[in-house]
Amino acid sequence: MFEAHFQTFEDPEGGVALSARLAAFREELIRRNLTGFVIPRADQQQNEYVAPSEERLAWLTGFTGSAGLAVVLRTKAAVFVDGRYTLQAAKQMDTAAWAVESLVEPPPEKWLEINLAAGDRLGFDPWLHTSAAAERLAAACAKAGAELVAVDSNPLDAVWTERPQPPLGPVVLHPLTHAGEAEADKIARVRTEMTRARLDALVLSDSHAVAWTFNIRGADVAHTPLPLSYALLPKDGRPTIFIDSRKLSNSVRSHLEQTADVVEPAALTTRLTELAQRGAAIGLDGSTAADALTRLITGAGGKPVRGADPIALLKATKNPAEIAGTRNAHQRDAVALARFLAFIDREAPAGALTEIDAVEALETFRRDTGALKDVSFPTISGTGPNGAIVHYRVTRKSNRRIAPGDLLLIDSGAQYEDGTTDVTRTIAIGEPTAEMRDRFTRVLRGHMAIARAVFPDGTSGAQIDGFARQFLWQAGLDFEHGTGHGVGSYLSVHEGPARISKLGTTPLKRGMILSNEPGYYKTDAFGIRIENLELVVPVEVPGAEKPMNGFETLTFAPIDRRLIETAMLSKDEIQWIDAYHMRVRATLRGKLDDATRLWLEAATAPLTA
Amino acid sequence: MFEAHFQTFEDPEGGVALSARLAAFREELIRRNLTGFVIPRADQQQNEYVAPSEERLAWLTGFTGSAGLAVVLRTKAAVFVDGRYTLQAAKQMDTAAWAVESLVEPPPEKWLEINLAAGDRLGFDPWLHTSAAAERLAAACAKAGAELVAVDSNPLDAVWTERPQPPLGPVVLHPLTHAGEAEADKIARVRTEMTRARLDALVLSDSHAVAWTFNIRGADVAHTPLPLSYALLPKDGRPTIFIDSRKLSNSVRSHLEQTADVVEPAALTTRLTELAQRGAAIGLDGSTAADALTRLITGAGGKPVRGADPIALLKATKNPAEIAGTRNAHQRDAVALARFLAFIDREAPAGALTEIDAVEALETFRRDTGALKDVSFPTISGTGPNGAIVHYRVTRKSNRRIAPGDLLLIDSGAQYEDGTTDVTRTIAIGEPTAEMRDRFTRVLRGHMAIARAVFPDGTSGAQIDGFARQFLWQAGLDFEHGTGHGVGSYLSVHEGPARISKLGTTPLKRGMILSNEPGYYKTDAFGIRIENLELVVPVEVPGAEKPMNGFETLTFAPIDRRLIETAMLSKDEIQWIDAYHMRVRATLRGKLDDATRLWLEAATAPLTA
Repeated sequence: MFEAHFQTFEDPEGGVALSARLAAFREELIRRNLTGFVIPRADQQQNEYVAPSEERLAWLTGFTGSAGLAVVLRTKAAVFVDGRYTLQAAKQMDTAAWAVESLVEPPPEKWLEINLAAGDRLGFDPWLHTSAAAERLAAACAKAGAELVAVDSNPLDAVWTERPQPPLGPVVLHPLTHAGEAEADKIARVRTEMTRARLDALVLSDSHAVAWTFNIRGADVAHTPLPLSYALLPKDGRPTIFIDSRKLSNSVRSHLEQTADVVEPAALTTRLTELAQRGAAIGLDGSTAADALTRLITGAGGKPVRGADPIALLKATKNPAEIAGTRNAHQRDAVALARFLAFIDREAPAGALTEIDAVEALETFRRDTGALKDVSFPTISGTGPNGAIVHYRVTRKSNRRIAPGDLLLIDSGAQYEDGTTDVTRTIAIGEPTAEMRDRFTRVLRGHMAIARAVFPDGTSGAQIDGFARQFLWQAGLDFEHGTGHGVGSYLSVHEGPARISKLGTTPLKRGMILSNEPGYYKTDAFGIRIENLELVVPVEVPGAEKPMNGFETLTFAPIDRRLIETAMLSKDEIQWIDAYHMRVRATLRGKLDDATRLWLEAATAPLTA
Repeated sequence: MFEAHFQTFEDPEGGVALSARLAAFREELIRRNLTGFVIPRADQQQNEYVAPSEERLAWLTGFTGSAGLAVVLRTKAAVFVDGRYTLQAAKQMDTAAWAVESLVEPPPEKWLEINLAAGDRLGFDPWLHTSAAAERLAAACAKAGAELVAVDSNPLDAVWTERPQPPLGPVVLHPLTHAGEAEADKIARVRTEMTRARLDALVLSDSHAVAWTFNIRGADVAHTPLPLSYALLPKDGRPTIFIDSRKLSNSVRSHLEQTADVVEPAALTTRLTELAQRGAAIGLDGSTAADALTRLITGAGGKPVRGADPIALLKATKNPAEIAGTRNAHQRDAVALARFLAFIDREAPAGALTEIDAVEALETFRRDTGALKDVSFPTISGTGPNGAIVHYRVTRKSNRRIAPGDLLLIDSGAQYEDGTTDVTRTIAIGEPTAEMRDRFTRVLRGHMAIARAVFPDGTSGAQIDGFARQFLWQAGLDFEHGTGHGVGSYLSVHEGPARISKLGTTPLKRGMILSNEPGYYKTDAFGIRIENLELVVPVEVPGAEKPMNGFETLTFAPIDRRLIETAMLSKDEIQWIDAYHMRVRATLRGKLDDATRLWLEAATAPLTA
């Protein structure tokens, strides 16, 4: 009845089965006179979702998380992961061959300082690291008396048999009704920023930036409509787009050629070299541009100017058409969510469903909208102890039956042409424990403290991150991830530069869309997360002395009343929940079948009714 | 009856009277073939309080704030100040000669980019800027096609007639009973950090670091017992202290020589050059070391390693003797504060007192303790509109009578041999308005949100800064300064590296002392600030999953009940205030005269009694 088209549940290869690959790779390093090598999870553009041809880390180690780094030395090897992936990494890898180490604090560089010996030659592929990352590696090598060696070709690719071909997803035009601003106007705004930064040219090393600037979308990686490509924007004259021509129909190509030259990716290094030889100041996005680009520009006599990509901030601040689109997308998504939540309430307490059943049902309800392009990331469907694995991804092997007494944590999202969604609900199956209700209510209070926050224009995400945690802290608890990330407009579900976390120094600007997703995870027991998307909007405060902002909640789905300990809430908080549930009902009025409508009425009844 | 020994109220010279100095300085620049010059407020060590011989910025411009920078070009001149000083700068300077510009956002570098012309030669004194600051200046010059020129001697000193002599305050030993750790033990801990950072030697370019490491105090600048000096700590062998021998008695010198070589300051460059010529990696504190030191080490073939001063973190984390000392200091200070607050309540409503009277009375009560070494900074005593000037410093000219209907904001502190205090109270004179009570209560709720916060070990100040602002934000209000700064142990009242502000990325560690001082300022009307010092302490939370911290309030002084709108408070907040007032009473029991004791009983009565 239900099935998932956009997500698979196969267990990836892993563990001891891969040890022959590590041995072959070590032999290749010896052939190249290297004593070690660094393998990041990244592709050439530091993308979150990478093409199968770029999954070097997974191929070598078995670890399939979305962030990580491996270091192979002669007799030691380690994979570095953040707190989200510690459990998963240990499960997926042969821990006799690989140590699991910290990616963040301490960073891998500390491990290198200790484990490298004087005279060691540590190789790295400069196309897969930013210059900042390469500099950190170089500093660690220097401290150990070792040398960091940039290789011309990646030694891992030399031993990777049956490596997939690079993707050739067709490119489509993103219509102006959704994009809200023509390419020429966007380019003019980017050039204003370039003038401010005194750049002669700007490299668009992030395919998201190319997609936004030229109003195109692609199909090269999973879950994000990304057209893998580069572009070069001179301060005057025509921009150039570097993209495999096999991805372009004649009509798309001729549309793009109204604005830009369209050439093959291999031409990028040639064009950059020409520019650099004329001494040009060339802007590079510090967070996506490969160190190879910096090296190329410097080597040819140009001036690489590394900084924040000006397009990232322009892209993050949504225009009225994008905001209208995302509101529509969320209202559409809400129908699927209501059907899904009603379905879970009906079927799960009898023990009839598994985690995979939940994923398949939710995707099916979303496909029923007739507008689903993809899920915006693999749905996290974790029940019982699986819910406590923050970035859990269910497989046939890990799949667990949803049982009475458990919580089900469902974190999912959709890609529609008018907007990208991301929502998490935690559902009580049968009777929750007092501990679950206490924890859920603390998470909910943190969620509301963000949703209800009023803050001066210019406030950063870091300044409000603590609001989401305070009620957990009071009980000696916390969650080990950020409170929120930016979300794109039919683009990446994880979009910079703003975020709500202790590292979020970017000011929250009107028109930005951010997730609000505090959680609590009890290892081996249960996981809780409550996530809505929020739009930064002006807030009228009578007597205000400065422009104030707040959030408009975009997501419409009931929050499980059975998990709320009303006695822990203030009157204002109760009012907020009741008002939110009223908005959910109003949004879905007339769009639901009778059974779902009846379910919704109960699920959104006032807390103190 | 009352007088101030540690603070003067004379109006500094300023305004148009100084225009001859600017003209003479511009002529000197022309003689030196410079088109401009940068004059920071800093001395060679970026000290907050600088010796009169280092007050170049004030001498040239008239501006006497604690932070600022001037740039003099051929036909333009600007002084850059932060939000605290915008009003004061405009009052103190001849605004026909000087523009008042932003010190922070945008920074002076933006102004330079616009106002420098290609070919300009902008001079700077490399002893008065950190290397990071010099690099920012150099980048701004490069963008404008101008050149940044490091001068050998400061052209301002050449035209500064009647420049005071450098100070020669006598050095005293800081006894082990207060310091809590012997010099040799401190040096061993610093060397552990040096080994971690792979340093051959460390320059102590901050006199606070020298004072802490060698357990000495001095008298070279106002309000901080600072012995202006440098030290050089090699990874092995004896450290060297560079200090003017005229500051040392025979007994102090012989005590210091048990641990270190003691030589004249001029020897620093010689010793550093010798070390650098051997290729040594020499650690420099990025935030205090002069760019001249970086240049010297690089020029001689050494390796300057700029980073965070490891001593700053060791010094900020107080040991049990220092904590016991600061508790004693605050209890002693509380007696003076109670006498002062009772005095104000008795005398001010009749209109009998001025802002200066308040400063003199408070210092006198503190001197009566018999232990006062100095005030820890010039008392801020602002009533009515003066209270809205965040870093107001009263002079004979600005002095204002404290009148019924006004608020009096008093921010003051003391230096005792066992600890440094800093406390702000806002006092209603006569009947406060509803607006004053509303604003005061919002500030107080923010203050309590910090004081009552519970947070995981490792949380930074930035993560809790928003707690202090949330109730103001809800009314569209804010305050334009950080919520809190670190405080030294009989050292600087403003001590890094931790702070509670959106820039406070340093984790708050147990043993750190921080101020908690939210405020609200209504321009031309009134100012409110409530400040206590807080000690970071472990908090036992039943069932906690990680080590949790919170604050122990060190300051004991009543918070003005007449300004509290009890109806705006939660039950927990009312309980906190009542409990705090109970602690104030218990602390002062048996230490007060009868009149003050009676006053205290009323001032600390329960809110809902």
